[in-house]
Amino acid sequence: MKQTLFSSDFRLGILGGGQLGKMMLYTTRKWDVQTYVMDEDDTAPAFEGCTVFFEGDIMDYEAVMEFGRQVDVLTIEIENVNVQALEDLEAEGIAVSPSASVLNRIRNKARQKTFYKEQGIPTADFQLFPQPEINHNRSYPFIWKSAEGGYDGKGVKVIRSTADLNDLPAQECIYEDMVDFEMELAVIVARNADGDIKTYPVVEMEFHPEANQVEYVICPARVTDAVSRKARDLALKVSEAFEHVGLLAVELFLTKNGEILVNEVAPRPHNSGHYSIEGAVTDQFEQHVRCVLNLPLGSTDTVLPAVMVNLVGAEGYIGNVIYDGIEDILAMDGVTPHIYGKKQTRPFRKMGHVTVVAKEIETARKLAEEVKAKIKVVSS
Amino acid sequence: MKQTLFSSDFRLGILGGGQLGKMMLYTTRKWDVQTYVMDEDDTAPAFEGCTVFFEGDIMDYEAVMEFGRQVDVLTIEIENVNVQALEDLEAEGIAVSPSASVLNRIRNKARQKTFYKEQGIPTADFQLFPQPEINHNRSYPFIWKSAEGGYDGKGVKVIRSTADLNDLPAQECIYEDMVDFEMELAVIVARNADGDIKTYPVVEMEFHPEANQVEYVICPARVTDAVSRKARDLALKVSEAFEHVGLLAVELFLTKNGEILVNEVAPRPHNSGHYSIEGAVTDQFEQHVRCVLNLPLGSTDTVLPAVMVNLVGAEGYIGNVIYDGIEDILAMDGVTPHIYGKKQTRPFRKMGHVTVVAKEIETARKLAEEVKAKIKVVSS
Repeated sequence: MKQTLFSSDFRLGILGGGQLGKMMLYTTRKWDVQTYVMDEDDTAPAFEGCTVFFEGDIMDYEAVMEFGRQVDVLTIEIENVNVQALEDLEAEGIAVSPSASVLNRIRNKARQKTFYKEQGIPTADFQLFPQPEINHNRSYPFIWKSAEGGYDGKGVKVIRSTADLNDLPAQECIYEDMVDFEMELAVIVARNADGDIKTYPVVEMEFHPEANQVEYVICPARVTDAVSRKARDLALKVSEAFEHVGLLAVELFLTKNGEILVNEVAPRPHNSGHYSIEGAVTDQFEQHVRCVLNLPLGSTDTVLPAVMVNLVGAEGYIGNVIYDGIEDILAMDGVTPHIYGKKQTRPFRKMGHVTVVAKEIETARKLAEEVKAKIKVVSS
Repeated sequence: MKQTLFSSDFRLGILGGGQLGKMMLYTTRKWDVQTYVMDEDDTAPAFEGCTVFFEGDIMDYEAVMEFGRQVDVLTIEIENVNVQALEDLEAEGIAVSPSASVLNRIRNKARQKTFYKEQGIPTADFQLFPQPEINHNRSYPFIWKSAEGGYDGKGVKVIRSTADLNDLPAQECIYEDMVDFEMELAVIVARNADGDIKTYPVVEMEFHPEANQVEYVICPARVTDAVSRKARDLALKVSEAFEHVGLLAVELFLTKNGEILVNEVAPRPHNSGHYSIEGAVTDQFEQHVRCVLNLPLGSTDTVLPAVMVNLVGAEGYIGNVIYDGIEDILAMDGVTPHIYGKKQTRPFRKMGHVTVVAKEIETARKLAEEVKAKIKVVSS
């Protein structure tokens, strides 16, 4: 009796109360699915809008066990959770999506990369090390990545000389070839427990020239149909290899020779899919909820071309946030700001995003630049 | 400093915690605007998703005063509130939208109809009575309407003979000519405190042949451009006469001679605008919030033709609600169910709605019928 998911005692749990969790709640509210959220910060974005909020550390075994035992289906909005607890909850009969085994494979970048090699999935060449060391067979520059704990540009560094290896933490890591890429792309794949699969259109991630953060996500990517097909096929292959339940965001490099390589994946809604709230028939958050509740998948078709602008804290401001210029962008047609609800800003902190839709992608891209010029995340 | 509405101590208050309030919260969550809700039922749809919920009777003077003093801007999601309290809160400097004077004019149907006459707004002819009486100058059938307290088909009756007058409550009422109409239409007008005004496209309301309830709302209405222009112009005229802040839903009759008459208005989001969540650039709930916070209005343009189906409790079922067949409609492209979150169903209770979008309105209308056939609101 699946219909008892709605307006009933059925409980969905989400580990993590950040913006990704918050945006999943739009769907659980729309369908009246009771949703429990756990986060150690009770001012987290997903505090409001959930049915029950648990203050607790999602890395803590006991806390996750206690939380998980109170729900029927458990999902995550961030990979840094206690995976042992998830494994034990699965053994107790709780449906956990993505599963502990998928998370284990993804959370550790050394394991993730090794998996691609085993599965014949194209990815940049790499070597594993138990801790950083000088390797005379490797030419500079290359990329150092910590196997665990990386997030939002942390745990990643370009190594240009032996000296750059000095300050790195003494932990498992990979050295990866630098890819001479033309463009960074992403494809979100949705898969429910029945194994139904759909891919979203290919998006293009435009990075800020200085900060190592995505500045614009452009949907559809400005690539040929052939590249787009190839990227979606590769993302499908990755999805089939992982057999995840829920979304899988597949980040890709399009190299200068037209090759497509997998960079990394995330088994959850992803920054590269935020545009879908306004730009797609079914937004990625609803789709993730459909997957983990094993409901039929929604259409991944695009409604209108869209560009997503990340709203990050401006440099030089720390404190109570003010969105300077937000009324100006509210007056622009096709422009929708999303404010995550973090009360404190600091430089480069993700505070929100803005979606711009237009009939032509180039129009949306130009409007996105206007948005960027008009709104500034500062403090009072 | 308008930007201090977002992620700050600024507080919006909503009187009433039903589905209309709940759907306003999607916007206040998206923008992180602190929102207080008052309702006497703490299982009301808007309980989840608001910042603070006050259990209290919105018809009670003291309760509304206490609640209103805690917010910066106060709005409503239902007209049956204590208007005296709103007037006194205005005097204390709280921004109340719609204002007490607008509510006073609308809430009493005798006053509302008299206002149309004074303003030269076309409406069906009527007479006022302090209480029902036999009127020999009036031919049968005609419509009896209670001046106050009508809602969802209550307080309205077709009078076919003297006998039908017997059971009516002894209170102020109007007798209204029955309009020989071709179609019922509606236009939602948005107006912010700065006086900026926008109208939504004309929608068509298709009634259930037996129950006196709207079965489908069709956007755009299947009328000529000339009728559509005339309807929007008349709605604008009504809006200008009321000088409301917030939405004004204007219900209209298109007569068989092509005349357009105003039936009645509601100064808030309205069933006839639910399609806009999927079908319009800016949905009616966000637009209402924009109006009452005096933000720039969003585009009222249509994204795709849409049909809205009301989900009401099936006859013969009272108790814990089950949405039988909901997975089937979740598998249909362009179909979005909204579940309000009422745990108990009863015959004809509004439990949710479904929006159907398609490239052609006739396709959407056909899909809406399939939806209607597939989903049934029953009890366990």
